[in-house]
Amino acid sequence: MTSPRDHLPELSTEEKASLTSGADFWTLKSIDRIGVPSIMVTDGPHGLRKQAADSDHLGLSESVPATCFPPASGLGAAFDPELAERVGVALGVESAIEDVAVILGPGINIKRSPLCGRNFEYVSEDPIVSGVIGAGLVKGIQSQGVGSSLKHFAANNQEFERMTASSDVDPRPLREIYLRGFERVVKDAQPWTVMCSYNKINGVYASQDPWLLTQVLRDEWGFEGLVVSDWGAVNDRVAALVAGLDLEMPGSDGGPDRAVATAAGSDPAVAAALDASAGRVLDLVGRAQARPAVAGPLDVDAHHALAREAAGRAIVLLKNDAVDGAPLLPLAESASIALIGEFARTPRFQGGGSSHINPTRVDSALDALTEAAGDRVAFAPGFAFDAAAEGQDALRDEAVALAASRDVAVVFLGLTDAEESEGFDRDHIDLAAHQLALLDAVVAANPRTVVVLSNGSVVALPFADRVPAILEAWLLGQAGGSATVDVLLGAVNPSGRLAETIPQRIEDTPAFGNFPGSNGHVRYGEGIFVGYRWYDARNMAVTYPFGHGLSYTSFAYGAVSAEATPSGDIAVTVPVTNTGSRDGREVVQVYVAPVASAVERAPRELKAFASVEIAAGATADVVLTVRREDLAYWDIRVDRFVVEGGAYRVEAAASSRDLRGSATVDVVGDAVLVPLTPESTLAAVFAHPVAGPMVAGAFAALQEQFGGEGDGIMSGEAMAKMMGSFPIGRLPAFGWGLDRDGVDQLLTAANAPQG
Amino acid sequence: MTSPRDHLPELSTEEKASLTSGADFWTLKSIDRIGVPSIMVTDGPHGLRKQAADSDHLGLSESVPATCFPPASGLGAAFDPELAERVGVALGVESAIEDVAVILGPGINIKRSPLCGRNFEYVSEDPIVSGVIGAGLVKGIQSQGVGSSLKHFAANNQEFERMTASSDVDPRPLREIYLRGFERVVKDAQPWTVMCSYNKINGVYASQDPWLLTQVLRDEWGFEGLVVSDWGAVNDRVAALVAGLDLEMPGSDGGPDRAVATAAGSDPAVAAALDASAGRVLDLVGRAQARPAVAGPLDVDAHHALAREAAGRAIVLLKNDAVDGAPLLPLAESASIALIGEFARTPRFQGGGSSHINPTRVDSALDALTEAAGDRVAFAPGFAFDAAAEGQDALRDEAVALAASRDVAVVFLGLTDAEESEGFDRDHIDLAAHQLALLDAVVAANPRTVVVLSNGSVVALPFADRVPAILEAWLLGQAGGSATVDVLLGAVNPSGRLAETIPQRIEDTPAFGNFPGSNGHVRYGEGIFVGYRWYDARNMAVTYPFGHGLSYTSFAYGAVSAEATPSGDIAVTVPVTNTGSRDGREVVQVYVAPVASAVERAPRELKAFASVEIAAGATADVVLTVRREDLAYWDIRVDRFVVEGGAYRVEAAASSRDLRGSATVDVVGDAVLVPLTPESTLAAVFAHPVAGPMVAGAFAALQEQFGGEGDGIMSGEAMAKMMGSFPIGRLPAFGWGLDRDGVDQLLTAANAPQG
Repeated sequence: MTSPRDHLPELSTEEKASLTSGADFWTLKSIDRIGVPSIMVTDGPHGLRKQAADSDHLGLSESVPATCFPPASGLGAAFDPELAERVGVALGVESAIEDVAVILGPGINIKRSPLCGRNFEYVSEDPIVSGVIGAGLVKGIQSQGVGSSLKHFAANNQEFERMTASSDVDPRPLREIYLRGFERVVKDAQPWTVMCSYNKINGVYASQDPWLLTQVLRDEWGFEGLVVSDWGAVNDRVAALVAGLDLEMPGSDGGPDRAVATAAGSDPAVAAALDASAGRVLDLVGRAQARPAVAGPLDVDAHHALAREAAGRAIVLLKNDAVDGAPLLPLAESASIALIGEFARTPRFQGGGSSHINPTRVDSALDALTEAAGDRVAFAPGFAFDAAAEGQDALRDEAVALAASRDVAVVFLGLTDAEESEGFDRDHIDLAAHQLALLDAVVAANPRTVVVLSNGSVVALPFADRVPAILEAWLLGQAGGSATVDVLLGAVNPSGRLAETIPQRIEDTPAFGNFPGSNGHVRYGEGIFVGYRWYDARNMAVTYPFGHGLSYTSFAYGAVSAEATPSGDIAVTVPVTNTGSRDGREVVQVYVAPVASAVERAPRELKAFASVEIAAGATADVVLTVRREDLAYWDIRVDRFVVEGGAYRVEAAASSRDLRGSATVDVVGDAVLVPLTPESTLAAVFAHPVAGPMVAGAFAALQEQFGGEGDGIMSGEAMAKMMGSFPIGRLPAFGWGLDRDGVDQLLTAANAPQG
Repeated sequence: MTSPRDHLPELSTEEKASLTSGADFWTLKSIDRIGVPSIMVTDGPHGLRKQAADSDHLGLSESVPATCFPPASGLGAAFDPELAERVGVALGVESAIEDVAVILGPGINIKRSPLCGRNFEYVSEDPIVSGVIGAGLVKGIQSQGVGSSLKHFAANNQEFERMTASSDVDPRPLREIYLRGFERVVKDAQPWTVMCSYNKINGVYASQDPWLLTQVLRDEWGFEGLVVSDWGAVNDRVAALVAGLDLEMPGSDGGPDRAVATAAGSDPAVAAALDASAGRVLDLVGRAQARPAVAGPLDVDAHHALAREAAGRAIVLLKNDAVDGAPLLPLAESASIALIGEFARTPRFQGGGSSHINPTRVDSALDALTEAAGDRVAFAPGFAFDAAAEGQDALRDEAVALAASRDVAVVFLGLTDAEESEGFDRDHIDLAAHQLALLDAVVAANPRTVVVLSNGSVVALPFADRVPAILEAWLLGQAGGSATVDVLLGAVNPSGRLAETIPQRIEDTPAFGNFPGSNGHVRYGEGIFVGYRWYDARNMAVTYPFGHGLSYTSFAYGAVSAEATPSGDIAVTVPVTNTGSRDGREVVQVYVAPVASAVERAPRELKAFASVEIAAGATADVVLTVRREDLAYWDIRVDRFVVEGGAYRVEAAASSRDLRGSATVDVVGDAVLVPLTPESTLAAVFAHPVAGPMVAGAFAALQEQFGGEGDGIMSGEAMAKMMGSFPIGRLPAFGWGLDRDGVDQLLTAANAPQG
């Protein structure tokens, strides 16, 4: 049997060009004479958004029903790649039933600021969590013969001017933070496609950046699939093609295809790029064709159940203080419950924009709690979503009276679609004032109050000290309501963890002042200090730290052991005991940092984690692997990742600020020999393995001349430090120690290939 | 009479080249046949450091005695350009007596981080203060026929790898923060020379950066003088010459001169640059020759008195709480005093490095206080500078016993030369632990304790809440000891103000994590948010804010009036009343910010200030001018400063956080018409004066199609925001509203010259 690619040589230039852009919003072009069918791609990322037949031009109209799984902000909080993979399988199955070749996800961009409107579609502020969860999703989707589209590649961390702004990022944060997750997914899971982002990176559109799309993605990482544009992301189509952009979406008026064909006729580089891209499109068609037919209908109940399980795993128990001697949660079996907040009746379970799903069904917490607890539950909406709506006072009064009359109040607060969506960024992280006022009144009436949050990205929690229990319930997909009730009642023991820090104030956040930029540029000035790396480095208080999440049981950590493996990884083992009376799940986190470093480093970085189910009273030996490549920093002197040699501190933790034990491992570093130049400082020359010994005598004399007791105008120590930063090539001008020939000879000797 | 420049045409290429580097460390070359003498240049900046005849190769040996005035960190705290000018006059006089043509100062680099080892040589974290004080010094020096050298140009804000590191700075902070002070000095005072810095800026050595040395300095600012290298700053001499570097210092082995001559022989651009530079050197010689001979000897007493006055003006009274009903300071006339701390006996009055002066005399606080207060004073050193020295416990015990036995303790704490110097940066801002321990013990023994600080750059003050009175006494020059006693006893009423914020912790500082960089680059990631701009924007607590400083009297501010002048400046008037019983001096500060801005802005920026002497009970109408140019931000779309139109908030203040009154002024903005391109967003098109009306109808239709109630996947508001960021050039591909010809026509019409 032939594959579509076999027909590549038969295609005209115009036919090849036609393959490199869509037929319309959601399909690729067919070429009937060679039997290449039109395949369909659809949003993603946490459920299928297959447009109905009467699709509008925007591609944003009603779609066929599909299961809405928890968006990435929730799935990320589960810290479990196995769960992500199972959700991915379900996404693949639903795509296959609908004959969709590629589902457009997952999205794994770093949550640089809580203000980014699309954070609900992203996993974490940490690249390892983003990469591991993203890889799980891709593996699951693609196990069903359906392609994924890893997006948005890259450094697309805001919605403001998203189609034109340049993300100005230095090499270290770009490599260590913003690309690292993508690198992991590509290497671990080989997504069929990668979707380039709208923005520019350091002035170059991602859609036409050969460094990004070819050098990094294909040459360095070994990506074997196709690069598709985000919808409308192509600025200069020919430049994009040459850079490595294979497929422009959506389809356009044919102008760019003609431009490609014309350019290919005169420029061999374009022709070669066109061959490569058309071939990759044909490969994608071939992969889609290879998928066995899947019969419907969708098992709605089974997928809903998985959505409920995933949502339950995503919920983070932020706080659960004892009141009258016992924690408020899970709710006592006999307690009368005031269920308050419009979100309990009208759940916000997904975000606005291209990821918006037409769900197969929707559970509300009100329905689920009423079903479980019957007439122990009474509901009051407490507020209307629209703060300007009339009657808010009456709604509040009603809710407060209800709270006062019941054993416990459960108050659902959150962000509305108008406050948080694809397409724009928030400009603050506060909950609406009328919601906060309601909560204050409820707490005053009944201090036994539980807060449940519905939000796609973090919000400030000014009430964190004043309420005894808080559940961070994100946007949880269509089964979020029932999953939340599972946790409230204890049917599910919460195990979610914060994949993003909850800061005290927006002014505390790393990108504040630089976000979202202006006049076409946004400077990633915080560098590598994103998320908890920032708060830890600056030793700042946060409301809840990265990795935080409580359980209805408790866990004790034993001694941490860590050792380097023959391959250079670090094998970590830590025994964890469930010391409570309920079965539960612990997310064991491993943070690593070199004890000393030649460059700026975060105090600790998450390098491995495991979500482990442990029965009450049982002990699990949790084994985790820290990959050697994840120890590396990006060395701008040699433009590659480098592992520094020396001692590394390995910490086992229940959160980034709840460190339970540590060990130290000696790591053999990568050999880095930076060529010496006339600009090399004396300190660098002195430290050089070849040059150092050659000049040791001369430098000792120099140090004696200028150092020692100093010379009256500065201390000897100061003088020695100052001399260390002197470039060797400028010694001759000062008549110090070496003449120009001497410098040349030294550098030549230092840089000669070593025998 | 002919001027040296008249001889330029007579010079050979080799002779011209010879003029563009020094003869040795401190002199330029002579050309006897045309009567061009060798002139001398010497360090600066706060006193003359003329090397003795047996100068060593480093150029750092003992110098002739000169008056050591307060280094710039102290002089800046006086907030008084008139005082700076008088100090400048004295520097000029001393230079003239010693036949020095140019004194190498002032240094006005921004204090980006308190860690910079050379901060004591710099004025402020604010460019207006830096520029105004710098201009005062230059005017004073040059009034005596002596040249100044404005340094270090530019973005040289650390000592770590200072000769090779690249300061990676975005255009806005570079222009608005790091260059603004230099611009002011050049425009207001025309220094004879500007000294380029060691570092690179965005990858290019300052010494060979044509953008910096020619485009900005000469073409934009109108600099008419000579650019000299910092000593050893030239990497590639020919490139430097072409870039606009006129004079390499110190003299070298002749190689670079030969390279210049050779290049000039083959490259007309080099030849032209050589003519220009040699001409500027001859101009400098001519200016030096024009100075009338000045007879010595130096009036040591008069200059010492000026140094004492300036030092008294520099001292900042940080805190002066009442104890037993009265402020501790000034010290009561009858009080017995325990004078504690080695700094009181052995003053640290200047910093290490090239600015190190051989003073004509040195006052210690011990001597001065003993002279004034006789046997009411008893002294105990309390500690030895070297923390590792033996006997510290005994020194502490002696001091504590002394403190317990006296009415009041005055404790001198500070940084030693080993902790702070040119040539290296600090890595923390803490005072030595043994000094802090001494203070704690003294305060425990006698809560009536005054702390006097001797430090070139700010230190953390963990004791700020525990001692009733603190004097920030910087490095104050040779008369610092007596000046400090003047303030302690009330002979001088303190009027210094903090020209740099005192932060709570190094982790709070703007550049933390980015400073001092690594592997050859330092990213100025905090952007425009330097100093108080950072703490204000992030609403952070500080120990003492920028502009802070108390007095022994009190001042009340009346209503602020502010109005735009015909020239576009803002004239500000505020009546200030001395409401206390002592004559005193108030530093009135004017902070300005636009009420709304299209770009990131600091909450307020200092734009004018005045140091005003006001007699007890009197009222002064303080008049200040905010220059229109200082309202501007750097617009990267058009690469120039732009004043935004609209309302500006003008605040009169006693510190950046002690706002006493405000007014609002409407400012007419600069016309900025950014050309529309296919990448212009719909929001930009819609706001365009020509294009906006042309497309209003089409956009209304588009908004109606996608906006309004939204379309099910996102709110109308969200959709409208998202559409606003859509580039107009990509509309055709989506089939929205305009085809490609329509876009072209629109842009052509929008960008046509307006009639």
